[in-house]
Amino acid sequence: MMIVEIVTTGTELLLGQIINTNSAWLSQQLNALGFNVMYQSTVGDNRERMAQVFATALNRADIVITSGGLGPTLGDITKEVSANLVNRKLCQHAASAAKIEAYFSKRGITMPESNLRQALIPLNSIVLDNDSGTAPGVIIEENNKVIIHLPGPPNELKAMFSQKVIPYLQERYFSQGVILSRVLRVYGIGESSLEASLQDLVEAQGNPTIALLVKKSEIHIRLTAKCKDECEAQTAIQRIEKIIRDRLGDAVFGADSDSLEMVVGSLFREKELTVALAESCTGGLISSRLTDIAGSSDYVIGGIVCYSNAIKSNFVGVPNEILENYGAVSEPTALSMASNIRNKFGASIGIGVTGIAGPGGAVADKPVGLVYIAIDGPQGSRCFRFEFLGKRKEIKQRTSQAALFELRRYALEI
Amino acid sequence: MMIVEIVTTGTELLLGQIINTNSAWLSQQLNALGFNVMYQSTVGDNRERMAQVFATALNRADIVITSGGLGPTLGDITKEVSANLVNRKLCQHAASAAKIEAYFSKRGITMPESNLRQALIPLNSIVLDNDSGTAPGVIIEENNKVIIHLPGPPNELKAMFSQKVIPYLQERYFSQGVILSRVLRVYGIGESSLEASLQDLVEAQGNPTIALLVKKSEIHIRLTAKCKDECEAQTAIQRIEKIIRDRLGDAVFGADSDSLEMVVGSLFREKELTVALAESCTGGLISSRLTDIAGSSDYVIGGIVCYSNAIKSNFVGVPNEILENYGAVSEPTALSMASNIRNKFGASIGIGVTGIAGPGGAVADKPVGLVYIAIDGPQGSRCFRFEFLGKRKEIKQRTSQAALFELRRYALEI
Repeated sequence: MMIVEIVTTGTELLLGQIINTNSAWLSQQLNALGFNVMYQSTVGDNRERMAQVFATALNRADIVITSGGLGPTLGDITKEVSANLVNRKLCQHAASAAKIEAYFSKRGITMPESNLRQALIPLNSIVLDNDSGTAPGVIIEENNKVIIHLPGPPNELKAMFSQKVIPYLQERYFSQGVILSRVLRVYGIGESSLEASLQDLVEAQGNPTIALLVKKSEIHIRLTAKCKDECEAQTAIQRIEKIIRDRLGDAVFGADSDSLEMVVGSLFREKELTVALAESCTGGLISSRLTDIAGSSDYVIGGIVCYSNAIKSNFVGVPNEILENYGAVSEPTALSMASNIRNKFGASIGIGVTGIAGPGGAVADKPVGLVYIAIDGPQGSRCFRFEFLGKRKEIKQRTSQAALFELRRYALEI
Repeated sequence: MMIVEIVTTGTELLLGQIINTNSAWLSQQLNALGFNVMYQSTVGDNRERMAQVFATALNRADIVITSGGLGPTLGDITKEVSANLVNRKLCQHAASAAKIEAYFSKRGITMPESNLRQALIPLNSIVLDNDSGTAPGVIIEENNKVIIHLPGPPNELKAMFSQKVIPYLQERYFSQGVILSRVLRVYGIGESSLEASLQDLVEAQGNPTIALLVKKSEIHIRLTAKCKDECEAQTAIQRIEKIIRDRLGDAVFGADSDSLEMVVGSLFREKELTVALAESCTGGLISSRLTDIAGSSDYVIGGIVCYSNAIKSNFVGVPNEILENYGAVSEPTALSMASNIRNKFGASIGIGVTGIAGPGGAVADKPVGLVYIAIDGPQGSRCFRFEFLGKRKEIKQRTSQAALFELRRYALEI
């Protein structure tokens, strides 16, 4: 099996100013493809040390993937260092230079001359277009080994890896067969219950393999099949996916890059539903997530962020008696928010969310993390009570996740 | 200056199942103490490869700090590998063994025999008690160099480093001086203009050093001073910071971990202002960012997410003639949203945001990315027009950043 080393570069990593998410992301991708990531290294923007780290990596791995150091500044030395390592000249790559110039002129900005440094490419290497930025990536093939340079910004790195590097690796290393991976996304089941439900499958796994990955308020089940063609791999994955879906029911909310907001959106579109939101503790986060999806204006009518009691009563229409008798964080308030916002905004479904995001605001019987989520619609009213753990932003995020999951569950029944 | 290498161990890192936060945290701490973290490496739970990585690290660094592999299982091999590297025997450490046994009996659990593996310590090394778990840490001094083994769980690692390792390092290496770093956060100036304004400073830089870092809709200016004590470093940084702030004016919106929502929040609190929001294209994102800050209920009154024209006119109060004559994405609509939401919700400042987040929705003269941000308050009304580039979520993010920046600018004048 091919051994990979990931080398992330940049002084900001060594200073601890940014957390290295590129290494984890690349490792996940590479492992799923069937490569063996055995080392991850980080080095700063220093010629000598970078050369030493690249040389060590090239010595012990078959494939070395780097991130960072492809920018226009004098501190961006990745390509220089590796060109030197494999004894190749750096030459201006005309198509890349033209692309960089076009990038600036399209934006009506005069290109700083230094930006053309980004178009310098080691001779006889493969250029990877950057569709999200100006720095092209590079693949250098040397004595049966491969060096791949990717840009540092995670969005550029991910796009380039997915669109350019995966096809390259598949063609070079798996021309005899394919590796296909599919991720099932699960919400609402704890890790240990999930493990228990799938224990026999995990223990008996062969091809496809089954891996569980605990994420922020979701669990991912990754199925990876290695087969002689794509059709066979698809079939193998579909077979095991069906067994898992039968066991887990609607806890499997999507696959691959599906987010809950995407899944909810498709469902609303398919069933011709609309939604209106009254958000207190989430402060607009659920609306924002729903409207991250292109075309969401077709089913998101709008919402009220009702942080104060005055807004809850005067604009959402929660009766003062409810607020006084039960408090703003209560089941009656959440239910009233949901039904009032639905009626006022004329949506088929209304959702009301109220809770204590903390760190302040807790009272007796109402701890930080207490959240009520109510839904009102053609199937009647429902309210869910949660106690979430975590800091303020985590509680907001977990609440939005629960709200979208319950919206989906509600809409599925219609 | 003492060179440090951080070696994190564990197969879950190489699989990308967890993100490496220990490296960033340790690097921050060590740089602040005046050490020079030059390498970070990650290796799995494999004897041969771990030994090779430890040997490389010990060769090129003065201090090697590892995390992980101190647990009770057979896969936990860190101490074995390093004991072997420096030719020392592993011996049972009586006090640690007693502590582990006490840990279990206190919790009424029978201790699995394997847990005593955690009390095996290389001869003549320093044992670091673990106050948050069962695995003790170890410091091995060898030929002027130092190896420090810390546990993998971040809470155990942080506690042990802060309470045990810092005092050890200070005692051993004191008089090395300190390195102090400060980040100035800038918005509203392009990278090349910023470089031009600071060119002379960047070229003449010595101590402190000046580094520019382009982030998602912000630029960070990192000042790093190496001095003999903290007071001197503070003074050196303050001197250059003042020059930069004088040149860039209110484009420098904060420092270190300040976010725009944090800075806006402090300003609103200080000036006793409140805000209400009418958001169309951002769908609640600006409200959500403002309410990410603890205590924001004191100044965020609430908002309306007015995705449809009906909500804009019926609930926000934008006159139908404005929507018909100028369209939903226009300066008059944004201004009307801002003043109406301000009056209705009784806030001191109202903000109205309307635009085309795309990918659909563009018409002649109104491209995807066109955004109007209006602010109404005691200083009168203002409207800003932007054309943002990027995908839907990026346009939303950039719009929220511009809105928060203009809110800050407006509030500064009050």
